[in-house]
Formats: sequence, structure tokens, C-alpha cells
Amino acid sequence: MSPAHHRRPVPLSKAYRLLNHGPTVLVSAAHNGRRNIMAAAWAMPLDFEPPKVAVVLDKATWTRQLLEGAGTFVLQVPCAAQADLVQTLGNTTGAETDKFAAYGLQTFIGEHTEAPLLEGCVAWLECRLLPEPHTQQTYDLFLGEVVAAYADERVFSEGRWHFEGHDQRRTLHHVAGGHFLTIGQPIDGHQLPH
Amino acid sequence: MSPAHHRRPVPLSKAYRLLNHGPTVLVSAAHNGRRNIMAAAWAMPLDFEPPKVAVVLDKATWTRQLLEGAGTFVLQVPCAAQADLVQTLGNTTGAETDKFAAYGLQTFIGEHTEAPLLEGCVAWLECRLLPEPHTQQTYDLFLGEVVAAYADERVFSEGRWHFEGHDQRRTLHHVAGGHFLTIGQPIDGHQLPH
Repeated sequence: MSPAHHRRPVPLSKAYRLLNHGPTVLVSAAHNGRRNIMAAAWAMPLDFEPPKVAVVLDKATWTRQLLEGAGTFVLQVPCAAQADLVQTLGNTTGAETDKFAAYGLQTFIGEHTEAPLLEGCVAWLECRLLPEPHTQQTYDLFLGEVVAAYADERVFSEGRWHFEGHDQRRTLHHVAGGHFLTIGQPIDGHQLPH
Repeated sequence: MSPAHHRRPVPLSKAYRLLNHGPTVLVSAAHNGRRNIMAAAWAMPLDFEPPKVAVVLDKATWTRQLLEGAGTFVLQVPCAAQADLVQTLGNTTGAETDKFAAYGLQTFIGEHTEAPLLEGCVAWLECRLLPEPHTQQTYDLFLGEVVAAYADERVFSEGRWHFEGHDQRRTLHHVAGGHFLTIGQPIDGHQLPH
């Protein structure tokens, strides 16, 4: 059964929930026949609807150059089964080597971007760059509007994550140096009386 | 034994690690004798050293007004024991009622800001606003430089989180509507051969 069998569109109004709990993401972009994918712990939602995102991309990264050229990018949410891959994609450059070929990565094509979407992740957000040259240059901070979103229905459906019984599909939350924490148990907060 | 007994300064070079794994934060600010605290899931590190942060604050929030007036704010990282409080602080306004008095909140004073720091959290970052009027107005996005940081040594020391045996001090990661996930188990990623 192909991984695509479990991939479902997420309504744009719920797309922020794919990033709301703060997972480390993979950022991919493609331009003029070149493509790349990198790890980024510094990404977050920026608005509900239309959904927007913010992500920090160092000036040294090849992905940043491709993203600026294409005006589009993809944020994807990797999972515990991909911890080695995430660490590797965060510590190698794609400027000289195609990481997809080097590591045998399987990808699929989105609806709105040229950027490759990585199989095995648990969520994907196709984004259109919202150009803000000052913010990009001064803070390495890139803003985007989410134009399509998808998730693995085994762990995200009806607007909620549900990882029980899927430990290998828990999202990764990077601390430093390849040391991650996976997301844990649910807890509901209730309004206090005052 | 007072909670302060476990509070330790975090070197500024390691301050980003308090937010790197994507926890929901509480934002506090004080100005002209008024103070407030609110919940924000959309916060992230923005730079290593000097450490910077980014946080989204809706125009309707009272904390935003105080922060803009004071030019300083505090991000603090709450934990599982505070789930009800975080949900409550995220769903009440402090414009008319002092939330600290209403909910009996214990605070302490930082070194660089007027903003109150909430006891019972597991990390605190005192920040100086980096004024960016266009970004603030257009995207509700506020940037700050971290000028001091502290953590509860029971769960963060030597630049690493270690929650084993401290389930009630695990960080909270909001999904939506008061539904949180707590942070889970560590996993180390290793570089793949290619």
C-alpha cells in the first residue's frame, strides 16, 4: 500500500494546526531544475485564514536561494522514524549534491509549487512566499501564505493530532545537535474560575 | 523550599534551546503600573547570539499594548501542571481585570524588564523589543532580543531538557481549543551515509 493512500487534504482553515504544536520542519524548494530540502526548527504559524507561516532560513542555505528564485516553498513535518534523515538533511548542503538522489528520497508533486514533497512525513504545507525584503535580509525570516495542506490521516484528522499507537509517526522537536524530543501525551486545559 | 531555589540563569548562547522544541509560551508585559500575561502558541527563536525571538500578538490583546509601551516583554515556558492556567490566560482579557490578582498568580522580578515573571513555569526569557513597525502592523509579528534567561534546573541544565521523572513539568504544545500535547521522549538523530 503506497504512502499516498494515507495522505488527505487538510482544509486551509485548519492548516495552522499542523504547525501549532511547534514541530521541527523540513523546508523544500525547487527552481530552474534544481531542488533542495533542509531542516528548520524555527518555523511557526503566523495567521489563521488565509493561513500564513514564518520560517528562518540562514543566508548560507541553498534552499533559501531556490525559494527566493521560485517564490514558493514547502514545509513538511517529519516524524520519529525520520530522525536520522532530519539530522542528516540539517547538516549537509544541497548546493553541490542532490540530497534526494544521495539519500534515495521518495517525493511527490504538489498542486501549487515546483518544490518536491517528501514521502514519509506526516504533514505538508505548500506555500507562496510573501516577499518582505527587509525582514528577509535583516533577520533571515521568510513569510509565506499556505495555499494547500495535507496530512497523514493515521495521525491527523478532523483538525486534531492523534499519535496513540503510532510512536514512529510522532513529530520531532529539535533541541540542539541532533538531539530531539518527540511529541508526547495529550492534555486538555480547562478554564479556571476566578 | 521556594520555587526560586530551582531557578538558574541560562547562558545567552543557550537561550534559544528554551524555545527550540516549539513550546507554547506565556507572554507578559508591564507599563505605567499596568501588567498582563497571555498565552501564545506562535513563538520561536530567531537567532542564536545575541539570541532573538519572534512572537505573534493579535491587535486585540492588552499585552501587545503594554509591550509596545514598555519596549520590553517576557516569554515564559509553562508546563503540564499549568494546563488549566494556560488555557485560562489564553481566553481572558487583562484589559479590565488584573489576571495576577484574579487567579492568585505568584510572580518574581527580572533583571532587565518591568514585566512580571510567573512562578511555576520551567523557563523564562527577558526580552527587549526590536521595533519593526511594518512587521508588527502587517503581520502582528513582534521581534525581540533576549537579554536574560532562566530555567528550572530540574528539567533544563547544561543546555538540555531532561523531563524524565518530571511529567508535571513537561512543556505544553497547543493544538487548538485548549487541547495540548505535552513534550515526550528523547531521540537522537545520527548522520546517514550516502
